[in-house]
Amino acid sequence: MKDALGAFVPGTDVRVQGSAEGPLSGLSFAVKDLFDVAGHVTGCGNPDWAESHAPAESHAWAVRTLLDAGASVAGKTITDEISLGLVGINRHHGTPVNPRARDLVPGGSSSGSASAVAGGVVDFALGTDSGGSVRTPASFCGLYGLRPTHGRIPVEGLMTQAPSFDTVGYFTRDAGMFARVGSVLLGETIGEDLPPGILVATDCFGIADAAVTDALRPVLDRLRAVVPETRDCRLADDGAIADWSRHQLVLQSTEFQDTFRDWIDRVNPRFSSEVAGAFASDGTVPAEVVESAKAFRIAARERLEGLLDGKRVLCLPTAPIPPIRRDARLSEIRRAVSRVIDLTAIAGLTGSPQVNLPFGWAGGIPIGLSLIGWHGGDAALIGMAKAMEPLLRSKVALPLC
Amino acid sequence: MKDALGAFVPGTDVRVQGSAEGPLSGLSFAVKDLFDVAGHVTGCGNPDWAESHAPAESHAWAVRTLLDAGASVAGKTITDEISLGLVGINRHHGTPVNPRARDLVPGGSSSGSASAVAGGVVDFALGTDSGGSVRTPASFCGLYGLRPTHGRIPVEGLMTQAPSFDTVGYFTRDAGMFARVGSVLLGETIGEDLPPGILVATDCFGIADAAVTDALRPVLDRLRAVVPETRDCRLADDGAIADWSRHQLVLQSTEFQDTFRDWIDRVNPRFSSEVAGAFASDGTVPAEVVESAKAFRIAARERLEGLLDGKRVLCLPTAPIPPIRRDARLSEIRRAVSRVIDLTAIAGLTGSPQVNLPFGWAGGIPIGLSLIGWHGGDAALIGMAKAMEPLLRSKVALPLC
Repeated sequence: MKDALGAFVPGTDVRVQGSAEGPLSGLSFAVKDLFDVAGHVTGCGNPDWAESHAPAESHAWAVRTLLDAGASVAGKTITDEISLGLVGINRHHGTPVNPRARDLVPGGSSSGSASAVAGGVVDFALGTDSGGSVRTPASFCGLYGLRPTHGRIPVEGLMTQAPSFDTVGYFTRDAGMFARVGSVLLGETIGEDLPPGILVATDCFGIADAAVTDALRPVLDRLRAVVPETRDCRLADDGAIADWSRHQLVLQSTEFQDTFRDWIDRVNPRFSSEVAGAFASDGTVPAEVVESAKAFRIAARERLEGLLDGKRVLCLPTAPIPPIRRDARLSEIRRAVSRVIDLTAIAGLTGSPQVNLPFGWAGGIPIGLSLIGWHGGDAALIGMAKAMEPLLRSKVALPLC
Repeated sequence: MKDALGAFVPGTDVRVQGSAEGPLSGLSFAVKDLFDVAGHVTGCGNPDWAESHAPAESHAWAVRTLLDAGASVAGKTITDEISLGLVGINRHHGTPVNPRARDLVPGGSSSGSASAVAGGVVDFALGTDSGGSVRTPASFCGLYGLRPTHGRIPVEGLMTQAPSFDTVGYFTRDAGMFARVGSVLLGETIGEDLPPGILVATDCFGIADAAVTDALRPVLDRLRAVVPETRDCRLADDGAIADWSRHQLVLQSTEFQDTFRDWIDRVNPRFSSEVAGAFASDGTVPAEVVESAKAFRIAARERLEGLLDGKRVLCLPTAPIPPIRRDARLSEIRRAVSRVIDLTAIAGLTGSPQVNLPFGWAGGIPIGLSLIGWHGGDAALIGMAKAMEPLLRSKVALPLC
């Protein structure tokens, strides 16, 4: 396969023809190499994982559903190792190109899927999002991206990372395709309605870089003009928004250490230093810290659901920083990941659906705006994206490569 | 190069002809891939290290000295990644075969050098020993091996790991060769004299597996017969012998984290999970812990030098365990390393010379006996090995492969 973007897993050529008829007939999609495609090893971004696992016997639920709807698999895309990472650097398989910012990272862990969609190689792509792995690359590559309500789209046939966080998401370049694919994965009709109310999370904007807030200010201004019921709010009623990521990290890392413990012990796998660092604590988090994080998660869900009240959406930057350079040092990667999680932890912790809207630009670099919806409000969120696109998307022509 | 043992670095073929005349004329030796050989990249057991370093401009001091003495370089041997490891498993380059126990590890980090010597591929081989990297593979592969007095043999042209622990050592199959090579590296005449006195470290034997003590008991019995001034002693006058390894690990890891910090930050290198674990603490050892370890080291040196008094040697098992299986799990590897350091930390912390004597056997598996000498007593230690060989080495024929 010709792969100028380095988006696909090296040495693989995975193609599956979709059904002859269906709502996605004639479309092509890429599959993050975390989903099973029958007959192929699901490599999960790590050669030692690939070597220690047999080929999948059947398609993952999401892959099968999209094939049944008429779309065809065009290949399997690079993921950050075992889905741990948010910048999109994979030291084994390479870092996929961000077609909208070639010197910068594509974001991860669904890096290759975002790269392939942004570069126009496929019509859409499947990703996964446990701690921000669809939202971050969608923001960095200027794409529509959904992290659904936790549990809304089946994770069957997907590598488990952290079960109470894992979700199936996807990327598209425009809102029409976003709605077409969403309708199939959710099994719901997608409307085209602006939200009745928007809460702009001032504390989330408050921890973002100036480059991000400057890029999103004109978008917010247009948003206020088209949705009169837009008002400011603080998400964290007491304490700092950074508390959310601290608790998310405790719970997510406790879960993924449980997930991978036996495999690591058996295989002694090779990881980049970035990913190895995620296992440094070796699961030795005190039980009371875990319990405290679980209590915080319950309160956080109640807080957010209360604010949204089944009709409003929370508006925030998807990531508080622009994409970093592809040749960033490990310490810069770690700082960036830590910054990004500060905002992606919100929907991670609450299990809420979130869409990235590719409406911001900072000197040609994509800056994503996010809407977080109420539990089960996935189709409504996608419909809002569709309604907003003609009103809010930059009129600047966006180059595709 | 034909390499049935998998001892040499894959994809390399490094040969250098030695001087026409000299005390080692006609002999061949292998070089652990931590030493510079002019014109070749010193790979240090990690492909990301190799990729980020230029070829060496000149030979390391030890390589040059042996070439000048007439020996020829036959190849560069596999090392545990950046010399961090004691069992000899390298997930990038493979685990060299232990010719004396093919299902078991060869020991590390000078794994390939020990394998090549034990397998009869070369006459002798260079290794390095910071925390046990010559002594452990010498014990596991049934070889003579020297860790010299710290600072006695120049480390010029050697990858730095932990400067206050790094030493240049070597392996041979018999005591005659041990003396010939030692004489060149030390620039001293090697005699053939039994030690005037031996202190059997009962606390060191006390923490060894029964398989080890059972294998060494008949050797100790013969030793007592030939050296009348052999008596028992406790090395640790107060506290446990395990305190020594705890302090060694604090100091050695603080040093090697300093050594590799910038390279890791720049390259984000891939490590096996075993080696990545060595960087888990990220150098965050409290200053008072380091100071306490430094004070312990001074006291430990005084204690040992006082016991030996420039004439006696300390006798102990080289490793408290036999070699583990090649397919051991990570947790078994970590437990083995932790056990081995309990004894290798003694000469590491005190900077004393130590020789492994291949005198013990447990069902065909080599079990090494060690002598630790006084500072600067390297040549005397080697002379003792030579005097002991005909008296103490098992009469059982040892198969070479």
